This record gives sequence, structure tokens and C-alpha cells, in this order.
Amino acid sequence: MRVFVAGVDGYLGWALAQRLAARGHQVAGADALLRRSWVDEMGSVSAVPIAAVEERLAAFADHFGQQLPFHALDLADHDRLRAALADFAPETVVHLAECPSAPYSMIDFRHANLVQTNNLTGTLSLLHAIRDTCPQAHLVKLGTMGEYGTPNVAIPEGFFDIEYRGRRDRLPFPRQAGSFYHWSKVFDSHNVSFACTLWGLRATDVMQGVVYGTHVRPDPRLNSRLDFDEAFGTAVNRFCCQAVTGRPLTPYGGGGQQRGFLSLADSVRCLELAVENPPAPGEYRVFNQLRDVLSVGRLAELVRQAATALGLSVSIEHPDNPRVEAQDHFYQPDSARLRELGFRPSAPIGEELAGMLRDLLPHRDRIEAHADRLAPTVRWRTPQPQTT
Amino acid sequence: MRVFVAGVDGYLGWALAQRLAARGHQVAGADALLRRSWVDEMGSVSAVPIAAVEERLAAFADHFGQQLPFHALDLADHDRLRAALADFAPETVVHLAECPSAPYSMIDFRHANLVQTNNLTGTLSLLHAIRDTCPQAHLVKLGTMGEYGTPNVAIPEGFFDIEYRGRRDRLPFPRQAGSFYHWSKVFDSHNVSFACTLWGLRATDVMQGVVYGTHVRPDPRLNSRLDFDEAFGTAVNRFCCQAVTGRPLTPYGGGGQQRGFLSLADSVRCLELAVENPPAPGEYRVFNQLRDVLSVGRLAELVRQAATALGLSVSIEHPDNPRVEAQDHFYQPDSARLRELGFRPSAPIGEELAGMLRDLLPHRDRIEAHADRLAPTVRWRTPQPQTT
Repeated sequence: MRVFVAGVDGYLGWALAQRLAARGHQVAGADALLRRSWVDEMGSVSAVPIAAVEERLAAFADHFGQQLPFHALDLADHDRLRAALADFAPETVVHLAECPSAPYSMIDFRHANLVQTNNLTGTLSLLHAIRDTCPQAHLVKLGTMGEYGTPNVAIPEGFFDIEYRGRRDRLPFPRQAGSFYHWSKVFDSHNVSFACTLWGLRATDVMQGVVYGTHVRPDPRLNSRLDFDEAFGTAVNRFCCQAVTGRPLTPYGGGGQQRGFLSLADSVRCLELAVENPPAPGEYRVFNQLRDVLSVGRLAELVRQAATALGLSVSIEHPDNPRVEAQDHFYQPDSARLRELGFRPSAPIGEELAGMLRDLLPHRDRIEAHADRLAPTVRWRTPQPQTT
Repeated sequence: MRVFVAGVDGYLGWALAQRLAARGHQVAGADALLRRSWVDEMGSVSAVPIAAVEERLAAFADHFGQQLPFHALDLADHDRLRAALADFAPETVVHLAECPSAPYSMIDFRHANLVQTNNLTGTLSLLHAIRDTCPQAHLVKLGTMGEYGTPNVAIPEGFFDIEYRGRRDRLPFPRQAGSFYHWSKVFDSHNVSFACTLWGLRATDVMQGVVYGTHVRPDPRLNSRLDFDEAFGTAVNRFCCQAVTGRPLTPYGGGGQQRGFLSLADSVRCLELAVENPPAPGEYRVFNQLRDVLSVGRLAELVRQAATALGLSVSIEHPDNPRVEAQDHFYQPDSARLRELGFRPSAPIGEELAGMLRDLLPHRDRIEAHADRLAPTVRWRTPQPQTT
């Protein structure tokens, strides 16, 4: 299958491209390399060193026996995007080319607007380009479980059947996001769903849980990035970087916040299942993509246990929560559809965490040199200093 | 009360500024004058001639005994917006400064993106500016009934209490918009609601029905615009312009599409009620702002009757529907909250339509000169020619 991966230089994108190639698919990709500059703006680096994109592409050719046609473009560059899609004629387009950071979107107006318009424009451009150049292609779009927030009822996969004042309908499940970033993903979901209704496109909208994990390979040019700064480091990845540098783990607030989690390996496996099992033309389907529902506090405890087993001495602290979120709440998301397609978690979470810590230990000094970037400075409620 | 009207040069904004001043409020405003250039781009004009903004401001001072501090700025110009708000210290900010056209947003990628990012960025900028300069101010934000689409259940005002799989919650009512423009209003609603939760702002989000009507005054500098082109002319306004030029009225498709409607005078009166009855700090409230639920076909019939009474000979035709919308459907929106605040429709719809037709007849030649702009050319399903 010909698969075009937008955001192929990113955390998920680079790992997914390799997995798809290993499965025999032909992969092309695009990336504006913005993640690299955003992490640089945050004053941080990837804990695992990553190669320049040219070296990555050379390694890809060496290991997978295919050239990956790469386009250094922003999806907003509509004419070049159309040309790239028309040239490759993909059967699947995986859209991972968005700014994925809640804290980054909460810094100030400029950042909120950058995240929302970057994500909105890229997705709108891609939808129009698919319509015009490859309308039969299956769009696999990365969203987030954060679109739903934490309602006091079960969370279905995208839609629910309700009775209201004596009448019935099947409606989109209401979204209650908790940051301007998470709202940007809601906006995308709306536009993608609308494009399926409107133009008969087919799409899988992936409501993904929080991803953690390393992707470290014998050829380091194939390694994926692993961020740990407050903006681009997800909770577990930050905990592991705290553990290997001997710092306390810092679940925010009480730590009772529950979320869906999955490893990078499982995320890539789920995306592969979505790619290899496309919906019918015109169908907009939603997958809740997660493996375990855990509290942030429990995750910190699991990281502590894995670190202790490796001989690291780790404590847990609870700094004030910089976010605005429920800290003790009901949380029950469905996640049956990927399991129906055959998804089985690849390894127990303790093993995943032990593997991550082993991958990160060689880079302890590199993390240490930027360890001040682990602590939160962006606060949801307090106005931030202007950066303009 | 000090009221800052963003979009004060527009169809609603100019009429509202006058109404608020007549009620004794102090009015300031901003406008980037984009509506004038968009209608120009569509090759059309306002049926009722309108004065340049400088003449409007002079007339405003003459008739209302107050200078209207005016800022020729785009809300995206964040620093100038902050300065304008800090200077005026408004108690209320009315946000009418958006691109309001569904067909315009459906032309191609460039227009979809312009409408969505213009509306998104302006609202985000305004929310941050209010937070930073006048956090106690009440934001009255114009949305649209089109955010809800046409679900098969009753439409509450913003939120509904549901039971789902044995548990209960109060959730935002799902949105199912029908154009990229209508989706942009949904995105705004999400951001405004989030800002109230996050920063304790207070807001009224107005889900407005389709507005029709003229605002013609003895001093023509006080007239509001009245558009009739396919993009910026709403259904009733187009029907009236067809009637005065002897053209058939053209409800799209079967004409069974039901919508909420209200006159410009009623819209202005409702916005005044929202302004004069602010919610508590931190409250996000939603008003469904409409007067009559009617089918588009029925409205055409009412326009025909009013025109016939004025001696005009009018027929009705049903061109293919260029939009993607349900044509026979359940439609039952609540609209109790404005009535609880005292809203009473100002005149029977037949009288409103007769008044409109009388206001438009002197401008028959002006409409005739651009009458080719009445017919739809933008089609929701067919790709449009690229304009880049």
C-alpha cells in the first residue's frame, strides 16, 4: 500500500514510517521540521539524540530497501501539498503533522493562535488536497482522548445514541477539551467529519491516549525523538527522565487525574491496524486508541518501581497543578474497535518502563544539562508574560 | 454602560451601535472593513447605499451627541486591540467582527481557511485581550443557530442534561454544522466557553437565526448595508431583492429546510437585552436568538404575499440546492431565555417584509445592475475552480 505520512520527522511519524516499511508498504512523507524548532524554543533537546532528516532518509533506504520520497513542506503550502499527493497517489494519508503540546498553547495569545491555526490550516489544506488529488485515499488523522475531557458518563468512540425529551438520535459525543491545543484537535475532528459527509472522503479519527516510550535502534539514525521539556514531554516520558537523573517524579497536584495511556510501540501498531483496515468510502469512524486507564499518580508509582528495580533511587513529589483539570473524577472510555481489529498490547507496562529507562540511561548527561526544562512554568490560570 | 462593538461597520454592528447610543450607552468600536472588500470580491454591492466610515462617524456624533471612538483594526492585531480596550475600559464587548458567509467559505481551500482562521484568530485575540485588560467585561459573542445543524431531537440553549448508560451529566449540546463557516462559529463557541472556565470571564454566546431586514434612516449616513449576493445575502434579503427587480424568488431545492428567523430590528433588540443583563463572572451562557421557525419555502411565500400587496408581480422557482442539507426534517429549537429577559417581537413578519420591500424599491436599479450575483455558483459538493 502507498502510505503518505505527514509529520514523518516526528515522535510517532518516524517510528511509524519504519514499521510500515517493514510491513512491506511504500512510504512517502512530509514535514516542516517545526517540532525541532519548537523544542529548541523551549530551551530543550530530545533526550535520545536524533539524526538530521537527510541522514534519517539515508538510513531508511539502507535498512528498508526503499527511498522515502520526502517533502520539506508545511501542509499550509497548499499547492506544493497537492503536487506531492498527486505525484505519489497515496492509498492512505496518515496525518501526524500538528503541534501536539497543551502547555505550549497556553503560554500566551501568540502561542494559542499558532497552535490552533497551524493545526486547523494544515488539516483543512490536507482535506481539500485529498479531495482534489486522491479522493479515494483513506485519511488516518491523529486526534487525542483529551478532546472528550472527563465527563461523568462513559466515553463512546465518537458517537452515541441518546434519547432526549422523548425523541432519539445518534449524535457526536460532546467534546470538552482542557487546553487550546486540545480544542484544536476538536476543530480538526469537526472538519474531518464534515469533509466525509460533504465529499465522500473516508477517514479514521484516532482519539489517542497519552503516549510514552522510546524508539531506539542499533542504527541510531533510526531513533525517534524523546522530549522531556514541560511543553513537549508527556507525563511518563518526563517521569522517566526525572528518574534517570535522580530527580523526584512530579505528578501534578493530587495525581488523581486519570487518562488513557499507551506505549509508542502500541501506538504504531494501532495506526498500522487503522491503515491496513480502511473504512468504506464516505465513512468517518472514530477509534479510541489507548491501552490502560491509570491515574497520573499511579503511573509515577510504576515508574518508581521500574527505576528501583534498575538500582535507581527515586522519590515522588506533588507540585501544584499548573493546569485546570478535574483531579478526582469518573473516567470510562470505550476502546473496543481497535481490539476488534486485532490489537493486543505488546508488553506489560512494567517491561515497557524498564526498557525506556535502559534506553535513557546512556543519555543521562544530556538530560541533566537541560533538566531545568522539566519543571512547569506555564500556568493555565495566570496570565503569562507577553512574548511579542 | 461602556460598550465596545467589534465589527461596528457591519450589517448588525452599525444598527446596534445606534440602538445602544439611543439607550444612553457610550459606544466605541473597531472594524477592519473586510465585509466591504468581500462583497466587492463577490462582484456585488449593498442594495442600500452606505456611507464611508468617516461619514458614518460624523453622523453618529450629530445624531447621538457622542463621539464613537473608532479603531480601524483587525482583531488579529493583538497589541493594538489590547491598547484599544485598555483605553476604553469597556463593561461590555460585543463581538460581531467575523466573516459571516457559508457560501464564501465553501469556494475553495483558500476561502475556507480565510473564514476559519479569520474568525478563530479574532476571537482568540479578543479573549486574551479581555483577560489582560478588562477581565470583568461581559463578552457578547455572535454565533449562529447553524452550529447545531438539524438534529432529530429538540435543541436546548447550549447544554443538555442526559442519562447515558446509567449515569448522568450536563454536557454541551453536540454541534453538527453544515459549512466551514458554520464550523468556525462552533470553534469560537468552544474557545469562549473554555475561556470562561479557565479565566473566569463572563460571556453570552448568541446562537442567532437567519436575520433579515433593512435599517434605513432619514439621514442616509445612518443606513446599514443590505447584501443580496449569493455569499453575503441571507435568504429573505435575497428574496426581497428578487421581488423588487421582478425576478422569481428562489428557495433552494424543495424549500422544506426549516430555520429560525428574526428581523434586524429584533436582533438588535435581543443583543441589547443581552448587553443590559450580563451574566455573573465566570458564567458562559447560551441564548438561542430567533423569533419564528419557518421553512425557506414558506418564507418565499410570505415575501411573495407582501410583494403582491405592494403591486409587484412575483413568482417562485426551486433551483437545485447548491448546499448539502436536510430538506425535510424535525426542527425544534428552544428560545426561552431572551423571552424571559423581556424580548417581544417588534412587528408581525408580514409588516417587516412590507417595510423592507418599501425600503428597497428606491434602489431597484442598483440591485438590477448586480442582479446576476443573486444566483448561486458556489456548490457544496462540486470542487470549485482554484483561485490561487
